[in-house]
Amino acid sequence: MSAAPFVSETRFHIRYAETDAMGIVHHSQYIVYFEEGRSAYARQRGHPYSEFEREGFILAVVEVGVNYRNPARYEQFITVRTWISEMRSRTLTFNYEIVDEALDETLATGFTRHICLDLEGKPTRIPEKWLLWMTD
Amino acid sequence: MSAAPFVSETRFHIRYAETDAMGIVHHSQYIVYFEEGRSAYARQRGHPYSEFEREGFILAVVEVGVNYRNPARYEQFITVRTWISEMRSRTLTFNYEIVDEALDETLATGFTRHICLDLEGKPTRIPEKWLLWMTD
Amino acid sequence: MSAAPFVSETRFHIRYAETDAMGIVHHSQYIVYFEEGRSAYARQRGHPYSEFEREGFILAVVEVGVNYRNPARYEQFITVRTWISEMRSRTLTFNYEIVDEALDETLATGFTRHICLDLEGKPTRIPEKWLLWMTD
Amino acid sequence: MSAAPFVSETRFHIRYAETDAMGIVHHSQYIVYFEEGRSAYARQRGHPYSEFEREGFILAVVEVGVNYRNPARYEQFITVRTWISEMRSRTLTFNYEIVDEALDETLATGFTRHICLDLEGKPTRIPEKWLLWMTD
Repeated sequence: MSAAPFVSETRFHIRYAETDAMGIVHHSQYIVYFEEGRSAYARQRGHPYSEFEREGFILAVVEVGVNYRNPARYEQFITVRTWISEMRSRTLTFNYEIVDEALDETLATGFTRHICLDLEGKPTRIPEKWLLWMTD
Repeated sequence: MSAAPFVSETRFHIRYAETDAMGIVHHSQYIVYFEEGRSAYARQRGHPYSEFEREGFILAVVEVGVNYRNPARYEQFITVRTWISEMRSRTLTFNYEIVDEALDETLATGFTRHICLDLEGKPTRIPEKWLLWMTD
Repeated sequence: MSAAPFVSETRFHIRYAETDAMGIVHHSQYIVYFEEGRSAYARQRGHPYSEFEREGFILAVVEVGVNYRNPARYEQFITVRTWISEMRSRTLTFNYEIVDEALDETLATGFTRHICLDLEGKPTRIPEKWLLWMTD
Repeated sequence: MSAAPFVSETRFHIRYAETDAMGIVHHSQYIVYFEEGRSAYARQRGHPYSEFEREGFILAVVEVGVNYRNPARYEQFITVRTWISEMRSRTLTFNYEIVDEALDETLATGFTRHICLDLEGKPTRIPEKWLLWMTD
């Protein structure tokens, strides 16, 4: 891939319930932020993930990796940047960067690797219109 | 009902992820503890809730109430007591008491009110064997 | 109180992680949406809750009640309406209405009752500037 | 290290709230199971993590990795196995295996890498008695 990939951005405040007794966002919560990044990505590309599921496909998560750079706190306003770093016929990898733009600080980076399943749970080809997420 | 109801008990440690920046268990978490109380109740009565769902019934939650008495912290070992306070043909109310037995302290009390639905989401009679939860 | 109260509104998409095996938003999640409604209320009134805590006060939750009207699903775009229904020198009650404006459907209603604590956990008077949340 | 490491085990039922609309445990939840594995590890080794924090130390998470092998469902009874794969003066890596012993099935494997911080958030040496987690 020579061209820069499409990068979606979504922004929201950190919720109180997402913090833990250290006073910072619990580390499991970043996985949920990543997922919200994927949802925003799909909506911004014109084919929401809920449509994907209604048409009989599931993007199962097979691997997750997160690097934690700086702690985040309640009410901080954060940005999740999401892009596809690899796409094959049946698998797909998303990369993420969570930043506080006001502080010019990276909070976390990571990736999720997925496999496309049909409703019986069998690996299957990613439908054409989602393949275009990557290439157009 | 003249006799005392069956009261189930289940015990577990509070998880770190369940705390918030106040250093205590987040108040939404008690709803999850109540649900775990219901699951333990059903298992102890011989008909797990997963069996209920496999047979085509759902106990949808229509109302929840919680009173918070004392804060709880990470790693505290707590007991959830669960009993049925009312059962009709289609509806059911569970009551809960969450305590720290070592400290002899009540952490929270509450209730959840449910309606029995079939898989199409239509209100339906609670199957006979679950009605017996209450009466035997 | 003769005048209508200030009602804040905040909108967001339902996250996948917030759903459960029934395919709908887990009932505990509405407590988190209420909390996010309170956060938005405080921000819109000019004194964020994080400022409240930095100044040495905590609004502890002493009671919660939720009525569930209609199920909500992944990616639904919802509105949380929040207002104060009662305010005394040390206690405060928020009311909530969660709606899908596109469907003109109420998803849930509820309330949370709070007491103001200082950093030692002692009940204390709500600071003047927050009392004004209610009256101006 | 030539000898096999100490492996802690903790067992619990999957909670309904931990599932998502796919009908399986949400992938972020495994991070919480790992954390519960660490808590059990520390308790079984005689120095609970809450003691660690009371003495002024924090084990901040700097990296997480999870491989998902098989989906898990509500009420499944699972085992979290936890061991330390690497320990230096200031950093520590835990490894995990989550299995369903009844089905003889691995659900997920993973690791978390930690750095020891003092209460000001400065990297510091892991106290002697926790170093012994590894070596005795």
